[in-house]
Amino acid sequence: MNMDDDNSRERSEENDIEIEEGEYNERKRSGRLFERFGSETADNDKEFGSIIREPLLWKNRTNTTSQIAIVGANVCTIESLDYEIVENELFKQDWRSRNRVQIFQYIFLKWTLALLIGLGTGLVGCFNNFAVENLAGFKLLLTNDLMIKDKYFKAFAAYAGCNMVLAIAASALCAYIAPAAAGSGIPEVKAYLNGVDAYSILAPSTLFVKIFGSIFGVAGGFVVGKEGPMVHTGACIASLLGQGGSRKYRLTWRWLRYFKNDRDRRDLITCGAAAGVAAAFRAPVGGVLFALEEAASWWRSALLWRTFFTTAVVAVVLRGFIEFCRSGKCGLFGKGGLIMFDVNSSQATYNTPDLLAVILLGVLGGIFGSLYNYFVDKVLRTYSIINEKGPIFKVMLVMAMSLLTSCCSYGLPWLSKCLPCPFAEDQCPTEGRSGNYKNFQCPPGHYNDLASLFLNTNDDAIRNLLSPGTKEFHISTLLVFFAAIFCLGIITYGIAIPSGLFIPVILAGASYGRLVGTILGSLSNLDTGLFALLGAASFLGGTMRMTVSLCVILLELTNDLLMLPLVMLVLLISKTVADSFNKGVYDQIVKMKGLPYLEAHAEPYMRHLVASHVVSGPLVSFSGVEKVGNILHALKLTRHNGFPVIDEPPFSDSPELCGLVLRSHLLVLLKGKKFTKQKVLTGLDIMRRFKAQDFAKAGSGKGIKLEDLDITEEEMDMYVDLHPITNTSPYTVVETISLAKAAVLFRELGLRHMCVVPKTAGRPPIVGILTRHDFMPEHILGLYPDIHHHK
Amino acid sequence: MNMDDDNSRERSEENDIEIEEGEYNERKRSGRLFERFGSETADNDKEFGSIIREPLLWKNRTNTTSQIAIVGANVCTIESLDYEIVENELFKQDWRSRNRVQIFQYIFLKWTLALLIGLGTGLVGCFNNFAVENLAGFKLLLTNDLMIKDKYFKAFAAYAGCNMVLAIAASALCAYIAPAAAGSGIPEVKAYLNGVDAYSILAPSTLFVKIFGSIFGVAGGFVVGKEGPMVHTGACIASLLGQGGSRKYRLTWRWLRYFKNDRDRRDLITCGAAAGVAAAFRAPVGGVLFALEEAASWWRSALLWRTFFTTAVVAVVLRGFIEFCRSGKCGLFGKGGLIMFDVNSSQATYNTPDLLAVILLGVLGGIFGSLYNYFVDKVLRTYSIINEKGPIFKVMLVMAMSLLTSCCSYGLPWLSKCLPCPFAEDQCPTEGRSGNYKNFQCPPGHYNDLASLFLNTNDDAIRNLLSPGTKEFHISTLLVFFAAIFCLGIITYGIAIPSGLFIPVILAGASYGRLVGTILGSLSNLDTGLFALLGAASFLGGTMRMTVSLCVILLELTNDLLMLPLVMLVLLISKTVADSFNKGVYDQIVKMKGLPYLEAHAEPYMRHLVASHVVSGPLVSFSGVEKVGNILHALKLTRHNGFPVIDEPPFSDSPELCGLVLRSHLLVLLKGKKFTKQKVLTGLDIMRRFKAQDFAKAGSGKGIKLEDLDITEEEMDMYVDLHPITNTSPYTVVETISLAKAAVLFRELGLRHMCVVPKTAGRPPIVGILTRHDFMPEHILGLYPDIHHHK
Repeated sequence: MNMDDDNSRERSEENDIEIEEGEYNERKRSGRLFERFGSETADNDKEFGSIIREPLLWKNRTNTTSQIAIVGANVCTIESLDYEIVENELFKQDWRSRNRVQIFQYIFLKWTLALLIGLGTGLVGCFNNFAVENLAGFKLLLTNDLMIKDKYFKAFAAYAGCNMVLAIAASALCAYIAPAAAGSGIPEVKAYLNGVDAYSILAPSTLFVKIFGSIFGVAGGFVVGKEGPMVHTGACIASLLGQGGSRKYRLTWRWLRYFKNDRDRRDLITCGAAAGVAAAFRAPVGGVLFALEEAASWWRSALLWRTFFTTAVVAVVLRGFIEFCRSGKCGLFGKGGLIMFDVNSSQATYNTPDLLAVILLGVLGGIFGSLYNYFVDKVLRTYSIINEKGPIFKVMLVMAMSLLTSCCSYGLPWLSKCLPCPFAEDQCPTEGRSGNYKNFQCPPGHYNDLASLFLNTNDDAIRNLLSPGTKEFHISTLLVFFAAIFCLGIITYGIAIPSGLFIPVILAGASYGRLVGTILGSLSNLDTGLFALLGAASFLGGTMRMTVSLCVILLELTNDLLMLPLVMLVLLISKTVADSFNKGVYDQIVKMKGLPYLEAHAEPYMRHLVASHVVSGPLVSFSGVEKVGNILHALKLTRHNGFPVIDEPPFSDSPELCGLVLRSHLLVLLKGKKFTKQKVLTGLDIMRRFKAQDFAKAGSGKGIKLEDLDITEEEMDMYVDLHPITNTSPYTVVETISLAKAAVLFRELGLRHMCVVPKTAGRPPIVGILTRHDFMPEHILGLYPDIHHHK
Repeated sequence: MNMDDDNSRERSEENDIEIEEGEYNERKRSGRLFERFGSETADNDKEFGSIIREPLLWKNRTNTTSQIAIVGANVCTIESLDYEIVENELFKQDWRSRNRVQIFQYIFLKWTLALLIGLGTGLVGCFNNFAVENLAGFKLLLTNDLMIKDKYFKAFAAYAGCNMVLAIAASALCAYIAPAAAGSGIPEVKAYLNGVDAYSILAPSTLFVKIFGSIFGVAGGFVVGKEGPMVHTGACIASLLGQGGSRKYRLTWRWLRYFKNDRDRRDLITCGAAAGVAAAFRAPVGGVLFALEEAASWWRSALLWRTFFTTAVVAVVLRGFIEFCRSGKCGLFGKGGLIMFDVNSSQATYNTPDLLAVILLGVLGGIFGSLYNYFVDKVLRTYSIINEKGPIFKVMLVMAMSLLTSCCSYGLPWLSKCLPCPFAEDQCPTEGRSGNYKNFQCPPGHYNDLASLFLNTNDDAIRNLLSPGTKEFHISTLLVFFAAIFCLGIITYGIAIPSGLFIPVILAGASYGRLVGTILGSLSNLDTGLFALLGAASFLGGTMRMTVSLCVILLELTNDLLMLPLVMLVLLISKTVADSFNKGVYDQIVKMKGLPYLEAHAEPYMRHLVASHVVSGPLVSFSGVEKVGNILHALKLTRHNGFPVIDEPPFSDSPELCGLVLRSHLLVLLKGKKFTKQKVLTGLDIMRRFKAQDFAKAGSGKGIKLEDLDITEEEMDMYVDLHPITNTSPYTVVETISLAKAAVLFRELGLRHMCVVPKTAGRPPIVGILTRHDFMPEHILGLYPDIHHHK
């Protein structure tokens, strides 16, 4: 296929130095990925093969075209928090002089970047809402006009046609330009912040497709949200700004050199994710808490402060935009944009039946939520088979789904009876595109309550469900809507469009909550709108398994503090119930994609192992002053990212561990060609030759590649001093340390390489290097299948 | 003095095994604390002497009577997260069988405890409010009645008399029963969660005094809040529940044995601190965020979830209490209890002048806030001189302050002119004890606006300041009130009563904000009540330096989301401004008390040092099978809490590091008397003799003490096998690791002891042990005064 060639060309251009994707795929094809680790595959960046549970990733032969497993193509771990190396080792001497001005610059830029991320994400959020509201508004008005003229078939054709065009646009963008933009994006961002830098997940093309794909998808009537994509968009914007733009598209800013390290980049992306939530829900505090609870794996107090600033900027931008649009300058942009729901909880007291009803909601929400996760998992695995057949299949799947969704939305309201308009309402049936009383097929003075849920934007449908009042929606209406949305939500996630999970879950939850509220009716004093909100909360708790952040997001969405205790209760119950069945939906997707996500807790069986049990050789190490040829050879043969440097006589009395060099730094050093004929220390010379930023972490796929080096035969026999680029303070563990403790150390400090040193004297100074993959349950259980897997 | 003897008796009963307080004081008296570390003082638990900046703690000879430095008397670090030792090493064999039932029990108990903490703190919060409102209400009504009868002098006598009685009660409790209960308590809780277990800070007597002292103090008209004390109370309740009650008061529960370790205890206390904030402000989400942002040094995702549950319980309890009191069953308990302010921010748009005004507020708030911190520091140092003279001086200082406060509250309103009542108000002058229109000395139909601020509870004064409307308070009124409260707030903190800082700061901030709002008047559209809120926010930001948690607390206090962006802005500005002057008030107090608080960031100069630079010898280590006499000798001579165990031939080929034993575990082992005549391994025997809970961490001062052992002369020559109680997986660093990196490791993993191992072979297997004190700037700068102290 044509596009595949294109993809592979782009791939070879953007190839990250850390894992050659070609090799990876080749190995996968040759089936070696499924072997137990023999000595030939055992290296620092080995992939972990698991026979026990196969992540989806490894089932697919060609990953780049599989929508789901897209990110697996280039799983490389991002660097550790060992960011000190350049500052600490290379520039120890002039560190003080650099301190004054540069630290001020750094702080200033840090805040400027946070501001820019907030501005960027806020503007994208505004644009997204503006575009969706106008596209969907146009579509709905067109349909409405035709309905009024009793041209029912034409109305359907117009409705389904608009949806189809938008769906094709969204899926074509996704399938052909940036397959990584499909899906929610939150799992990928979460994995990135855990240290897994998946292929092209934060690339500019992904950003572009995510923005427009999300607009077309949401406007196209799919049961998808804009929230997940907004989080991903925020992260992409942050990454782009942090990298100083894309070199590919000639956008670079030199003054961003301070941020070319993993820690700062990770901080920026955390800010971006928070800004995304803030922009999607107009919930600045909720955004911060989301980043803290769900997205980030490492958290620092300083980050709280900066994230908060970013989301505050987003809030200001959104406020300005709404203010601007209030005067009617934004076309069809109306109340549905930048959702803010009104829930009536004036009822300040709760009785026992109320509480029992709420507990029931929580339990049911937990069960439904875990069922939702279960089905999403199954559907994703099924779709991946279709999606990996090629981009055209992806588009066709999306088209089929679009047709199905259109049929449901347009067809199901016919099941509903026409209800006479209530007297109190001044506008029934509703004119324009939103509102609770849609005329649909009914005679004047009557309305179809199911149509007001289906033939609306998702935001407006949620607003209708949460609206106060008791008699607007019939029980059968809510039942049909709940069933339809629950199923559509499940089968929509996984098709090749950017699709958030929040909105489908809120829709299903709110309809089910309102259903329960309507059924219980007289038994409880609570408003059915409040029931709908609690239903949404229980469903969210059951699928996403967040607590505080969801609570605050709902609080900010509804602007009503009185319902806080009830929402807390319902979230606690539904999370507890759902946790006993399966994992949260994002964790599940991360696992299914085969991303080597480091869990916060060590598995219990790790206590029975020690570090040396999982270290596998042979180890490739360098001398302090090493032959260029040896280095090149090692770089070519292995895909290790870190190599131990061992000082040997005459530079030390006995062989001792000097430290660790990174592949990327070695490549820079070799490119600089500061070689000597003799085995001598040339540290000072080298330090004069290079500046700190030469060793700064390049953007994804932008570092020096092995092929860029042109080392002559003569140079191969020369020596190079590795001391200046060696991190002489690597974190080490003794070989007999409990693996659980080593895992805690590895995870808490965000390491990438951990040196294992021998306990007894008289052996080589390093036993091996532990990397992220060595801590994966799949790897350990592969090595020791007898260890019983305690849950 | 009589009480001193009592104190010392109690001390010897409650003496913690880790540092003998007597010795500590003795050493302090002999001046050795101020010496540079020679070899005789250099040990694991050495105190760091600093000549550069002397914390207050070391100025005082007798610490137990000094109100401020009280906690310094027994500064012992709590244990590391190395909690695995018992489970991991001692009971490796039967770990699987224990798993099933016990893990379920553990989880169940964990949640039960969270529930109990929530219930307990919630009930205390209710009781506190109930008592304060009734006591203060009685006092104010009495004064009011006398005023109406024109008996001005009698009214003053009644007012000042009531205040004096309450003040004496509060200070007597504090001075004689639990000196640790004085002050806010938040710095101590913060230090505890950082790993510093200060003497008797969470004891039951402290809890008792904190509750009643706070009630008497607040009701007694002092410019103090109940918020800090509530946080401390919550932490005490959590500690008490986690320890299974106090053995001293015959309250123990056996089934709490699972929580007798540092990690679980720390988690419980985090929950308690969050519950305290939730109870004080009726802000469940704010409580969680406070615990996260300000209190906790280590945070885990699971903790977020549990903390949230606890605060939810608190919210439910408070709600029930308010519901109960609504029917008038709570005496004078009125709106002032369980504060919830109403702010009018219906104004949805802000103009440029509004924003400029807000920025001005932020900047001024930052400056005032840092000034506040500066003066609090100075005043505390002054008071400590008075307080350390004895309990009677403490009480006298409190009495003087009470008289001064009464004079201000009663005297200053005379400065204010009588204003005619506005027509619109139906109740002017206000009847009863709260309200904006106090009659005071004015003729009927007139009111004194200053009296409505001064002659009210602090909560009601804040409510008045935040109330909407523009003309109620005259500029001069606000100016006088601001000046008085600012000064009173500063000079009140540090006297021997439980005194929170939140309320004084909010009072000062709100009055200053309203002042600015009134002055700007026509320039800005914002309501003066909103200005008052923003002023309070800016002041809080300037003193406490919290951001997200303050924002959410204010949000929950005012139940108004529309003002969120403005509050965020003002907090960001005031924190930034204030941070450029000094540290947050809690950090400042922690530092002043000399608590060895581990900062999140390593100091820059640490990068120029390596681990071995700060290790100081001589090291006391044991053999794997050691003579009982040697162990006893080492335990007597040193106050080390951890000893390395070195395996020597014949148990290993060459000397190698086996692990680390803790003093407390050694004491248990010696008490068990499983000794042998020969130097043989008796591991299995010992494991049969002991159960895991025998080694569980005892409550403060409740472990086995050295004096409890009665080892005969014969037994002194016998051997004991240390292997079963040795933690064979201690975290180690190589001696050449950068000190900054070692500090990161130490802090992130919450360690207590870190073994430093040699880099080269042929030397003893351990170079030294690093403890918390070795990372203190005072210690390092003491050793290397030449290292320039980069800010």
